[in-house]
Amino acid sequence: MNDQAPVRRRTVRVNEISTARMNDEKTQSQYQPYKDAAWGLVNHWYPALFSEELPEQAVEGIQIAGIPILLRRAAGKLYAIKDQCVHRGVRLSAKPTCFNDTSITCWYHGFNFDLASGVLNTIVANPDSKLIGKTGVTTYPVEEIAGMIFVFVREDDFPLEDVPPLAHDLPVRFPENNERFPHPLWPDAPGILDEGAVALGLHRTGQSNWRIACENGFDNAHILVHKDNAIVHAMDWVLPLGIVPDHEEPISLIEDEDGPKGMMQWLFTDRWKPILENPDLGLKIEGANSRFYRIGPKIMSSSTNGMFQ
Amino acid sequence: MNDQAPVRRRTVRVNEISTARMNDEKTQSQYQPYKDAAWGLVNHWYPALFSEELPEQAVEGIQIAGIPILLRRAAGKLYAIKDQCVHRGVRLSAKPTCFNDTSITCWYHGFNFDLASGVLNTIVANPDSKLIGKTGVTTYPVEEIAGMIFVFVREDDFPLEDVPPLAHDLPVRFPENNERFPHPLWPDAPGILDEGAVALGLHRTGQSNWRIACENGFDNAHILVHKDNAIVHAMDWVLPLGIVPDHEEPISLIEDEDGPKGMMQWLFTDRWKPILENPDLGLKIEGANSRFYRIGPKIMSSSTNGMFQ
Amino acid sequence: MNDQAPVRRRTVRVNEISTARMNDEKTQSQYQPYKDAAWGLVNHWYPALFSEELPEQAVEGIQIAGIPILLRRAAGKLYAIKDQCVHRGVRLSAKPTCFNDTSITCWYHGFNFDLASGVLNTIVANPDSKLIGKTGVTTYPVEEIAGMIFVFVREDDFPLEDVPPLAHDLPVRFPENNERFPHPLWPDAPGILDEGAVALGLHRTGQSNWRIACENGFDNAHILVHKDNAIVHAMDWVLPLGIVPDHEEPISLIEDEDGPKGMMQWLFTDRWKPILENPDLGLKIEGANSRFYRIGPKIMSSSTNGMFQ
Repeated sequence: MNDQAPVRRRTVRVNEISTARMNDEKTQSQYQPYKDAAWGLVNHWYPALFSEELPEQAVEGIQIAGIPILLRRAAGKLYAIKDQCVHRGVRLSAKPTCFNDTSITCWYHGFNFDLASGVLNTIVANPDSKLIGKTGVTTYPVEEIAGMIFVFVREDDFPLEDVPPLAHDLPVRFPENNERFPHPLWPDAPGILDEGAVALGLHRTGQSNWRIACENGFDNAHILVHKDNAIVHAMDWVLPLGIVPDHEEPISLIEDEDGPKGMMQWLFTDRWKPILENPDLGLKIEGANSRFYRIGPKIMSSSTNGMFQ
Repeated sequence: MNDQAPVRRRTVRVNEISTARMNDEKTQSQYQPYKDAAWGLVNHWYPALFSEELPEQAVEGIQIAGIPILLRRAAGKLYAIKDQCVHRGVRLSAKPTCFNDTSITCWYHGFNFDLASGVLNTIVANPDSKLIGKTGVTTYPVEEIAGMIFVFVREDDFPLEDVPPLAHDLPVRFPENNERFPHPLWPDAPGILDEGAVALGLHRTGQSNWRIACENGFDNAHILVHKDNAIVHAMDWVLPLGIVPDHEEPISLIEDEDGPKGMMQWLFTDRWKPILENPDLGLKIEGANSRFYRIGPKIMSSSTNGMFQ
Repeated sequence: MNDQAPVRRRTVRVNEISTARMNDEKTQSQYQPYKDAAWGLVNHWYPALFSEELPEQAVEGIQIAGIPILLRRAAGKLYAIKDQCVHRGVRLSAKPTCFNDTSITCWYHGFNFDLASGVLNTIVANPDSKLIGKTGVTTYPVEEIAGMIFVFVREDDFPLEDVPPLAHDLPVRFPENNERFPHPLWPDAPGILDEGAVALGLHRTGQSNWRIACENGFDNAHILVHKDNAIVHAMDWVLPLGIVPDHEEPISLIEDEDGPKGMMQWLFTDRWKPILENPDLGLKIEGANSRFYRIGPKIMSSSTNGMFQ
């Protein structure tokens, strides 16, 4: 038999991707923090639960940005700690064991943690252990406002003294910003921090990459997606083909010293103009009539986007 | 308590495989291209769809050798392009959006690609974008013959001018090769390129490693597998225990300058002899009567094997 | 538009875990062999099947510590070999093919292995192959006792002459160890090697990490887990909060020259004392009455733990 190997037209390259059409290095580098944050961006405030979901004495285990968090309300106070025992790593919320209102005990080997500080208070069957007071779980700042519970989801070593006020991760407020961010229809858009505000909503689980969901919240180039949307048809809206910037700053970065940080989309102001025609495809929109809106500063994070958009 | 570690009989080696019974380096190296091609061998012609599966105006998204491919028939012409938008990577076929017969538009952000060249024609809501004409998706040569649509599945940078004719990836043809590859029963075996040929068939999804499926197409040492086969029993066939080479070239490499390249199995010629007895196991076959057959040159690829065997 | 990147509070570290609360290097290193043994500890005797599960002529494919093992009983003899053909790697037990009582044949390409030595006896359709006698599959020592079949699960290159007697991987025996390991209630605890002993039991599949299951067999700090246990309640047992060592050697390593090797828990002797009170949590147990028990030397392996505890 011939010893020669059969002809192959080309060696398949293993674990290698053609770079022929990829963005250049500079463009790629801008996406790096975004790429790194596979589970979401940490060290931000996130909405966690609605108040009614955590009645007195309740314990709930949730996960935000990949971090397991236990929420507990006891004697009228709210607590959030890492939902992972320092000893064998199990979820404390798997079988909530509470002997009093200021601590929670791991159901597995009895490690008892102070809810306010996270410190190991005692071990049920080893009250003299040298570990007591020397270790513990991470705690998370909590704020309850307008019927919602917010948690500051931090890395284990992010200093508590650097935690910003909740307002820094919420949209800019009106009417005090009416002049700075004028809007033709809703000059006085309400906010969650307004007196008497009540937030209503629901949890919805999206089977998707959070980055794509997030992108769709501020990347307005996807209007085409909505052309077959049932609401659009029911309302007899006629959408433009899309909108393009018509100003040197169509999106502004907001980095107020003592206020929210994020981005402001100048949508449906004269900084953006609708595209009503594409001659290459013979497309022409007549009678565009869709609703105007203004959206607030955005932090690129899955949860805030999902709940406030 | 004793500080000494408990006795262990042997350390388990992590991420290491005993080489005691493995093939030597030379033998291993021959398998390398085969091992690398986890998703199949690219830069070959593959059968993609039956003609009737792609009527006028249809769009179908398929995958061959790990590459997503969109097929479209419009104004009587057939097109195949990469089914992955250059912008955000989504499948164009997920929601086919066609504004004319020569292009396809991504449903997500309106990128419009020329079906023949793959070039970015326009962006629906951004007709003046600088990207237009500068980027695009890979196209794949298509051939339709005897009721089947074939696609040349190439790497993004495999030059179009190097694409061989379809005939190079099909079996050798008869009767012109009767003398070269004589067969006692079917000297004039038909081929898909014969005038008036019609291919019938069906798609079947095998939950398996394609390499093993492929091996079974030319490795005749597995005849034993068929001893309990329902067809064999129904036809009263008596199979030999197996067949072994009886010639210096039981399988020939075919590398015709202007023709098919692959392997020819000299099965059921005098280059192979049936084994009817294994004295070590006391096995003896009498009255072997199974059907003779001849198979053509094979390219080691999952699809061609599956459809032509 | 502002070219500056949006403010980020902290870069998320990719593929990195905060070491803030992890054990130090010395402590970590002690766990290393345990961590390495993802599939269990090899080179030990394991219970494989009950005798009645493998009648004359039966073939069973099982897996212990990640190693596929084929068990066969033929002409009254028991055999265990690696359940993986040396040729194409398939499981021999997927379609047991037995032409006689001393060998098994691979259903795929007819490789025939001697059950006692594992050596390749013949190939069904290639009785003259040069491979015959030169390769084979690993064999495993087997012992059948008291209605159970034990297999010594070894690495491919662990020498057969180093295989210890089964007794080395079983608990210490009584009454001969009554003085060494005295027990108040059961001085003469029976063992599987006693004359006339019969083992009864069942297979149970635990969807868990075997290490955790194993830990619970000798780490007595988890008594708290059982406080809501249905059996405990039904028997009106009152458990202590836990037990703590009260002796310099609460667990002994056993490394007898010619006998079992493992650990002896001195549970419910005066080397451990029950904890009946935790003042920090205001917990106090009165009338603790749960059953005393003594457990034998343990090898840290999933199966022995599961069946003998």
